[in-house]
Amino acid sequence: MTPPSRRGPEELPPAYGALEARFQRLSHLEGAGAVLGWDWATMMPEGGAETRAAQIATLEVMGHEILTDPALAELVARAEEELASFGPWERANLREMRRKIKRAQALPAELVEAYTKARGRCEMRWRRARAEDDFAGFAEAFEPLLARVRELGTALGDALGLSPFDALIDSHEPGIKVETIDTLFDELGRFLPGFVDEVLEHQAKGPKPLPLEGTFPIEAQRALAHRLMEALGFDFDSGRLDVSEHPFCGGTPSDVRITTRYDEKNFAPGLMAVLHETGHALFELGLPRAWLDQPVGAAPGMGLHESQSLLVEMQVCRGSEFIRFVQPLIKEAFAPHTDVSGRAWEAANLERHYRTVARSLIRVDADEVTYPLHVMLRYRLEKAMLAGDLKVADLPGAWVEGMAEFLGIRPRTDQEGCLQDIHWAVGLFGYFPSYTLGAVAAAQLYDAATRDEPELPERIAQGDFRPLLEWLRKNIHGFGSFHSSAELIRAASGRPLDAAFFKAHLKKRYLT
Amino acid sequence: MTPPSRRGPEELPPAYGALEARFQRLSHLEGAGAVLGWDWATMMPEGGAETRAAQIATLEVMGHEILTDPALAELVARAEEELASFGPWERANLREMRRKIKRAQALPAELVEAYTKARGRCEMRWRRARAEDDFAGFAEAFEPLLARVRELGTALGDALGLSPFDALIDSHEPGIKVETIDTLFDELGRFLPGFVDEVLEHQAKGPKPLPLEGTFPIEAQRALAHRLMEALGFDFDSGRLDVSEHPFCGGTPSDVRITTRYDEKNFAPGLMAVLHETGHALFELGLPRAWLDQPVGAAPGMGLHESQSLLVEMQVCRGSEFIRFVQPLIKEAFAPHTDVSGRAWEAANLERHYRTVARSLIRVDADEVTYPLHVMLRYRLEKAMLAGDLKVADLPGAWVEGMAEFLGIRPRTDQEGCLQDIHWAVGLFGYFPSYTLGAVAAAQLYDAATRDEPELPERIAQGDFRPLLEWLRKNIHGFGSFHSSAELIRAASGRPLDAAFFKAHLKKRYLT
Repeated sequence: MTPPSRRGPEELPPAYGALEARFQRLSHLEGAGAVLGWDWATMMPEGGAETRAAQIATLEVMGHEILTDPALAELVARAEEELASFGPWERANLREMRRKIKRAQALPAELVEAYTKARGRCEMRWRRARAEDDFAGFAEAFEPLLARVRELGTALGDALGLSPFDALIDSHEPGIKVETIDTLFDELGRFLPGFVDEVLEHQAKGPKPLPLEGTFPIEAQRALAHRLMEALGFDFDSGRLDVSEHPFCGGTPSDVRITTRYDEKNFAPGLMAVLHETGHALFELGLPRAWLDQPVGAAPGMGLHESQSLLVEMQVCRGSEFIRFVQPLIKEAFAPHTDVSGRAWEAANLERHYRTVARSLIRVDADEVTYPLHVMLRYRLEKAMLAGDLKVADLPGAWVEGMAEFLGIRPRTDQEGCLQDIHWAVGLFGYFPSYTLGAVAAAQLYDAATRDEPELPERIAQGDFRPLLEWLRKNIHGFGSFHSSAELIRAASGRPLDAAFFKAHLKKRYLT
Repeated sequence: MTPPSRRGPEELPPAYGALEARFQRLSHLEGAGAVLGWDWATMMPEGGAETRAAQIATLEVMGHEILTDPALAELVARAEEELASFGPWERANLREMRRKIKRAQALPAELVEAYTKARGRCEMRWRRARAEDDFAGFAEAFEPLLARVRELGTALGDALGLSPFDALIDSHEPGIKVETIDTLFDELGRFLPGFVDEVLEHQAKGPKPLPLEGTFPIEAQRALAHRLMEALGFDFDSGRLDVSEHPFCGGTPSDVRITTRYDEKNFAPGLMAVLHETGHALFELGLPRAWLDQPVGAAPGMGLHESQSLLVEMQVCRGSEFIRFVQPLIKEAFAPHTDVSGRAWEAANLERHYRTVARSLIRVDADEVTYPLHVMLRYRLEKAMLAGDLKVADLPGAWVEGMAEFLGIRPRTDQEGCLQDIHWAVGLFGYFPSYTLGAVAAAQLYDAATRDEPELPERIAQGDFRPLLEWLRKNIHGFGSFHSSAELIRAASGRPLDAAFFKAHLKKRYLT
């Protein structure tokens, strides 16, 4: 692919040029909001919360105003007529602009405001309700939010010619519909439950992982994380690593900020979170530099973004080659503080740690084999709630039944059941599937990468991640939203998204 | 004073209510910009600079658009008619709104843009020119910036009925004119040069300060700073302490962020910077909570702000009572790392360190006796440059002559001469006097505080800063911009700003 060039403002046709200027302004507001959000989670003292929330809300409202300005729609109409003189990136950019405008204009300001308020109230209530295992308290704030989400889905759907749920999914996964997800989840639903049985049986025959005991000072964990991030290609001139309650990847593509959390008694989860977020960060850092302030410069969907974090975390960093590479580094990092001479610290044992499968109640702690079952449960329930087929009051019961069906276990409390995730409490519906779309795409893309570059795994074992990063940049990162996620996956791997690769990956890793 | 109440939006008359909503939005933009600026100086990796600068510029432009919206002026006219039903704080708020609108509307957008660009170019050039002692290189970018500053002053002056220099000073010191500053500086000019001679003579007779040698780990310095900030009344639930190249106080009044820099071989300057910035921070933290998102909720001028940092740093923290309090804490903080048993660590020697007077070339390193002379030189030169009486090319020579006249020393390079400060390079004219207005006000206010609360110094010696903070909140902080700086000083001290207190303070501290 030719690196995407960008014409200067003076070379652009007038209407399209004016559009770029307005979307640049929007990207500055969004970027400012991203930094404020990162700061909230990492730096902000508690007393700043109220003002900060108001600042972020104002930036969002002003961004919405940019997108719903009637003059913008006129500029788009005029820019369509200028189309003949456009390059392909400008055309793709105009397409993405239209998409953003259409979605924003579909939503009346009062609905956005009502949704935002209901979301704020419900999130606050959820925090308390989860802590106190109080579903009834949550439901009180969740009912009105769900009503607003339905209105939002209907308004978006009407404007886009989609069903309400399709319209909500489209917010995170442009172009993906319920039908596609249903097909994929049906296939995984036929495969996974039996496969989990097989894996657990297989696992029970092998040796149990020896515990990785010791004290792991935060500074040593941070230094190791830093070293691995650099090895993977993270550029610390354009990003940071910090600490937050929940790991995330934030900031802007020229200043990517990932976070993790450290446990001095258990280094493994914090380190894996760093590797996961580094996958996200490499996508952001690899987006087309010339187009970062325009819609076409952003990633095309959350599933593809998740595919990059899971490709790094699951495909690469839990793979044998990476563990061969990282094992001596782990020992070196902690040797001054902990006895790392025993068998627990051999690569084979680390591998067992990073590949333990278990039926568990909490999604964020789940392994890659059972994770999609957590997602499928949520997808089924949110679909039913949106359609009105499942009443909020019946959610806890439906959750317990679903867990029993998908995973064969039953939560004893709502805290470890339907109150565990923040998503619904902040009005995010249709988002969960992206995690599994990402996992499936990650397997398919890593398969394609290793077919294109057969020496890639061995290079990883040597700590050389350049061939991997080059392949990802060439096939995924560098395109921004020039292509859709589906198109990118097809072009990079030679076929449409296909669960076969994910299934093959799981079989190979967990049954051999 | 009654704590300022605030009426809810639904209780406000319509035009004034609409104004509050617009200014609230402006305050969110400004607050977001403040956080982005803090992040730039403390956290941001270099690669983020370009995008960040663009984000900040966009927030500024959008703030300017709010202030120059013709509908806003109409709202102000209608709000004037609603005035009868207003409380005094609403009236004061409307007055401050008018002030901000008038100043913004005085500036054509093209001039603001030209000024901003010239400023960006000149600042970059200045960084290089200072490093390379290249005045000619600086002058090339400074000439066009100076022209824009003149245009800015003229445009502002025309709108406000002021001379261009008065209009620029008014940006930092509302209501203060050249005339007032001239009178003050004339008085100090008659007093200080001879006084410096006297002090140096007096100082030469006493013992030389013994060096404070040792290693002072950053973590120990930080912990001490934290402890002193808390003692002074800084609330870490509403603020932070971090590191930056140049110490500053930033953030927003509900999330005040101060910075310092640490030197492992010399703890004193970093600590004093913390105390100085804490003075600024206490002002921000004490502003009227109910009005923080409105113009009346902000400090009324830079000089009064500086008076609070200098009151804490110079009046309080270099005073004998504070040194009695802090001496054992300093010893305790560094005892694990350094031998603090010698005579160098006695209070009398610390006092000598914090009160050494010297004729020196660099303003930011100057003591409180010679500091105003540095300011007076700059004020004289910027006045002459603006008026066209001093050509840019003649600035280095005029600087050397001025230094010789005011301080009796001559810089050998422009690096340690007219290139040392960033202010002119970023188009800040009429700002320097605020430092000395602040020093003079600090002496007057501290004198008033100790007359109102005679036990105040002794309480400081015991580490109890509550009487001081309460006096400051009651007399200064809690008013925001309800009164002007001049009115506040007069009300708090019983008389207009008067250099007599500053002179008395210097005589007492440096000649007895």
